Amino acid sequence: MIDLRSDTITKPTEEMRKAAYEAEVGDDVYGEDPTVRRLEERAAEILGKEAALFVTSGTQGNQIAVLTHCRPGNEILLEADSHIFYYESGAVAALAGVQTRTIKGTNGAMNPDDVLAAIRVEDQHFPETGLICIENTHNRAGGAIVPASNMRTIYQHAKAHQIPVHVDGARLFNAAAGANCSIQEFTQYSDTVQICLSKGLGAPIGSILAGSEEFIKRARKWRKRLGGGLRQVGIIAAPGLVGLTKMTDRLFEDHENAKFIADAIGEIDGMVISNSVDTNIVVLEVGGLGCSADKFVAALKDKGVLAVTFGPTQVRLTTHYDVSRKDLEKAVEAIREVTAELKI
Amino acid sequence: MIDLRSDTITKPTEEMRKAAYEAEVGDDVYGEDPTVRRLEERAAEILGKEAALFVTSGTQGNQIAVLTHCRPGNEILLEADSHIFYYESGAVAALAGVQTRTIKGTNGAMNPDDVLAAIRVEDQHFPETGLICIENTHNRAGGAIVPASNMRTIYQHAKAHQIPVHVDGARLFNAAAGANCSIQEFTQYSDTVQICLSKGLGAPIGSILAGSEEFIKRARKWRKRLGGGLRQVGIIAAPGLVGLTKMTDRLFEDHENAKFIADAIGEIDGMVISNSVDTNIVVLEVGGLGCSADKFVAALKDKGVLAVTFGPTQVRLTTHYDVSRKDLEKAVEAIREVTAELKI
Amino acid sequence: MIDLRSDTITKPTEEMRKAAYEAEVGDDVYGEDPTVRRLEERAAEILGKEAALFVTSGTQGNQIAVLTHCRPGNEILLEADSHIFYYESGAVAALAGVQTRTIKGTNGAMNPDDVLAAIRVEDQHFPETGLICIENTHNRAGGAIVPASNMRTIYQHAKAHQIPVHVDGARLFNAAAGANCSIQEFTQYSDTVQICLSKGLGAPIGSILAGSEEFIKRARKWRKRLGGGLRQVGIIAAPGLVGLTKMTDRLFEDHENAKFIADAIGEIDGMVISNSVDTNIVVLEVGGLGCSADKFVAALKDKGVLAVTFGPTQVRLTTHYDVSRKDLEKAVEAIREVTAELKI
Amino acid sequence: MIDLRSDTITKPTEEMRKAAYEAEVGDDVYGEDPTVRRLEERAAEILGKEAALFVTSGTQGNQIAVLTHCRPGNEILLEADSHIFYYESGAVAALAGVQTRTIKGTNGAMNPDDVLAAIRVEDQHFPETGLICIENTHNRAGGAIVPASNMRTIYQHAKAHQIPVHVDGARLFNAAAGANCSIQEFTQYSDTVQICLSKGLGAPIGSILAGSEEFIKRARKWRKRLGGGLRQVGIIAAPGLVGLTKMTDRLFEDHENAKFIADAIGEIDGMVISNSVDTNIVVLEVGGLGCSADKFVAALKDKGVLAVTFGPTQVRLTTHYDVSRKDLEKAVEAIREVTAELKI
Repeated sequence: MIDLRSDTITKPTEEMRKAAYEAEVGDDVYGEDPTVRRLEERAAEILGKEAALFVTSGTQGNQIAVLTHCRPGNEILLEADSHIFYYESGAVAALAGVQTRTIKGTNGAMNPDDVLAAIRVEDQHFPETGLICIENTHNRAGGAIVPASNMRTIYQHAKAHQIPVHVDGARLFNAAAGANCSIQEFTQYSDTVQICLSKGLGAPIGSILAGSEEFIKRARKWRKRLGGGLRQVGIIAAPGLVGLTKMTDRLFEDHENAKFIADAIGEIDGMVISNSVDTNIVVLEVGGLGCSADKFVAALKDKGVLAVTFGPTQVRLTTHYDVSRKDLEKAVEAIREVTAELKI
Repeated sequence: MIDLRSDTITKPTEEMRKAAYEAEVGDDVYGEDPTVRRLEERAAEILGKEAALFVTSGTQGNQIAVLTHCRPGNEILLEADSHIFYYESGAVAALAGVQTRTIKGTNGAMNPDDVLAAIRVEDQHFPETGLICIENTHNRAGGAIVPASNMRTIYQHAKAHQIPVHVDGARLFNAAAGANCSIQEFTQYSDTVQICLSKGLGAPIGSILAGSEEFIKRARKWRKRLGGGLRQVGIIAAPGLVGLTKMTDRLFEDHENAKFIADAIGEIDGMVISNSVDTNIVVLEVGGLGCSADKFVAALKDKGVLAVTFGPTQVRLTTHYDVSRKDLEKAVEAIREVTAELKI
Repeated sequence: MIDLRSDTITKPTEEMRKAAYEAEVGDDVYGEDPTVRRLEERAAEILGKEAALFVTSGTQGNQIAVLTHCRPGNEILLEADSHIFYYESGAVAALAGVQTRTIKGTNGAMNPDDVLAAIRVEDQHFPETGLICIENTHNRAGGAIVPASNMRTIYQHAKAHQIPVHVDGARLFNAAAGANCSIQEFTQYSDTVQICLSKGLGAPIGSILAGSEEFIKRARKWRKRLGGGLRQVGIIAAPGLVGLTKMTDRLFEDHENAKFIADAIGEIDGMVISNSVDTNIVVLEVGGLGCSADKFVAALKDKGVLAVTFGPTQVRLTTHYDVSRKDLEKAVEAIREVTAELKI
Repeated sequence: MIDLRSDTITKPTEEMRKAAYEAEVGDDVYGEDPTVRRLEERAAEILGKEAALFVTSGTQGNQIAVLTHCRPGNEILLEADSHIFYYESGAVAALAGVQTRTIKGTNGAMNPDDVLAAIRVEDQHFPETGLICIENTHNRAGGAIVPASNMRTIYQHAKAHQIPVHVDGARLFNAAAGANCSIQEFTQYSDTVQICLSKGLGAPIGSILAGSEEFIKRARKWRKRLGGGLRQVGIIAAPGLVGLTKMTDRLFEDHENAKFIADAIGEIDGMVISNSVDTNIVVLEVGGLGCSADKFVAALKDKGVLAVTFGPTQVRLTTHYDVSRKDLEKAVEAIREVTAELKI
């Protein structure tokens, strides 16, 4: 099987497994796991923040950010298809009691004017705007990079209104690789940022939430409430550290691979590539074949290629460390065959 | 002062005051206030529901509806400018822990296809769609009537997915008066409905939440948690009963008055009426004058007419029991003067 | 029927009804109801606080206090049988997300040492102690007065730890009448206080929450979220003002009446008065008759006297404005008869 | 350093590290990690439940249990010193909105009559009793075993009132080892149970929540909301499986070690063992030395022994896999010296 469902399915590398095996550990609830400390310090440094916290998932990092920044009855502004709104089971309302005010963006980027217009004035009828969230790269926009300039303007509006900005940067290293710049080009326009070690970076488990020292101190307590305070966490922090320090430089390969399949698939009669393929995600529009995404994905599975539905007639393919150029050539061939068969 | 800010400012009539004075009362926490019982029974009957509950405001009725229908982590579907989303301080998230998924409507009516598309399938990434809310008439759409046929289709989709429908009918009697039909033409397409006694109906305080017996039983407990369990509530239920039984038939007068001023103002050079004036609300677009809504409202106040801003360059006027045709003629004149002055 | 179930059942006096009838009103959501403003100003003055807020019930006042003082994940300290813990449907957890840490008191008064010992130190395993609540008089302790000296010590501990103190003073005027002192003897040892207009003071509906200006401003928003923002509230604020200004001086009569029946009932063979009868509540222990409270209450009802069960074998009687000394003599006689019958 | 602070500090064994290194993994959010499946199936079997869920900590397992069993406004009954109440940062209120009603037990066991008396009847003033929690062994009661017979009676009361029972069995294997019986002797009296892999069982990270299939399905979604949905979780599930299947039989050694030091320390003049030493925890009362627990713990640390304060004058020692009999002999010697020095 050639698995293009997500970069989350990447398996730990031999180096990561070895790092887990040899990890120096301690009880992190007592603050005594040297490996997770090293990971947190290194992550803070890379992301340009004072402090960082290891969390077990991107969702946990985002939820803790909202819980720490906001109070119940606050409103948060976020893109209409953002992960926090779309894929986190309504947790921001369930746990943090905040109202989601969504803004439809373009290629995942909210128009800063729309953000500005959505900030509430003080009035007893209105929730207080408690946080602005930016997702970069934007998953449902097909891995689109939200430009640093867009983030800067939003961040300036936010600062002018004393509103914090959180970046859901589950794939922010992909943005940096895609824009060929330092990740701090993006993180400078945020108060807090969450990045995933378990997607393109290949680690088995974990994400990082970074921000000010004071913020991370309070975040640590919310992590405890969510059950994210762990013991000998070095076992997973060690492979996470490998991901953070050794895997970011190779993300461009995933992007080249994505462009390769997008180009090849785009030439297949009846297929439309519906995203901009900025990074490692390719979105196919299969409606032109007169078939549903479900049917297309099922047919593709029969040919040995796994993809996910991404809308009624949209299919997402994601490149990652565990697929080679050769795999992708086979995948393109499978798609060609499926397209031909479904058109008949 | 001619007060066109809202129909909420109507003062109790002499009959309502007398009803308060003479009200037969008891302790409603013990279920012994005969007047509120009469009000609740009469309201249930009029709205075509099994049971009804007196609440102290439309917001309280809506919040209790959401608390009773939903669980934390549910998602509710509602129009993007609806009162529950826009004007209730984020309370549905703060109190009920539900995520708001907004759908941009046309004249306050959500497209049923959009509602259908927004219903979530079961997946651990997704909140469960726990409730669909319809606001009728729709305040921020300028008192627009959501057609019964629109409600019917949404209701059918909802039933097909076992999702309850709540109608925020703060001004539903205006919809019935405007459509010249029974209020049950609308309420039949809902599981629960909230109507206000304190707006066009003129009562000083209170709203009604109606639904099934079982629903109202559970709602009563949530009302208690919110501090809405009252004692000798007959004092306000009595004027509410006057509103419910004697004031609904005259709402058409407010609508005629609204049309009257809309027609007159529409003829003023530079003024645009930006809503359909289905009921008792008139929305003016003053951007053409090159001035902000704030400035226009302030100028109007100097002329003895009160209105509210309704957007950066929009102004809302609302007709109600406490303004006569003569008052409205004066108001139009004042608007004419202000328009002339501001244009210079 | 002689109704001794609660002082909540008092019906508005003729003066209160007239005040409702004549009330000068406005839309309080716009801050324009002159009567409620007068009530709030007068209440703040009497209670010795900067500002006050009219709320629809004691429960609403308490809930808003907790919501305004605390954040989710805080812990509040309160007496083990206090109203907020025992009778408010778990609302402090449901709405404010705070954990209740109960302290068993003596006659309703928590030992200040126990309060001090229960204050949490900072540790990621611990909730932060966010509020200390004192109930005075204490309902389930049989209307016992919590001494001002007890409140002072708790307040001093609280200040030393920067923890606010809220007084659930639903019957705090009874405490002042019973202790023959100004109510400020008690309120001086609190940051916020809630008092009820609808119990001994006889008003049909409403309570007051008082505190600093800044606190009341934030509380107002939480009131709006709970649906407690009302329109022409003067209709009920007017009778509330009568209660606040004209009824407090007569509470000593209720207390004398309570002592009268306690003395008389205490002489009945087999009956035990189990509370200290500090104010207007008398608690009977009927276990000695070998019968349940339910049975005793039912038998008493057959004789024309209403009481409430207050435990498996405890019955509560409450004196108030609507029962005369003559009524009470009859009630004692009925109790005598019921006791005699049940003993056989 | 001889570390007797907690059994949570145990480091993964060589076998566990190897299991992590070699673990067969997949993306568990897609349900494709074979190792965690094996762990969950094996755990369900051992605990006698239909299904089980891997969670990242005992706190997370407990929180998910409460979130899945209860609704906001419910009340849960639990021992006054239980972990859920005492050590989980108020999370049950913050996340699940449930009110904690604590019952003071004896050696960690609540009197079933007290539990029965605390169950609420239906009344709008009362929260619904939504869950009963039992902690076994009971941490703050010094690792005391709650007898199965006690659990049975509570469980029977619970069933008679249709209330679920959750067992916080972070150290339930210690209870089984201490009582020399199968763990199912205890779990049979529960609807759901949480057990920790990371304490006496030595695994680096993780706990198990077990219950009915239907319960675990819903629990999985709450786990996702808390950010506990992981990817290649086999890396930690593999050492967890070693803990679950190979470490339970040796817990009796920790208990023998605890008795050994309790006996030895008990003979030191001035020292009092204040718990029953049922399992692997020993609690020292150091007040007799005229010193605080803080001071004692600090002095002990200077001698190379780590312990934790457990009250103003109480110190907890915990035996576990990473301390040998020889270590414990040294620890006793250190305690003897410290005691002698502090008494001077």
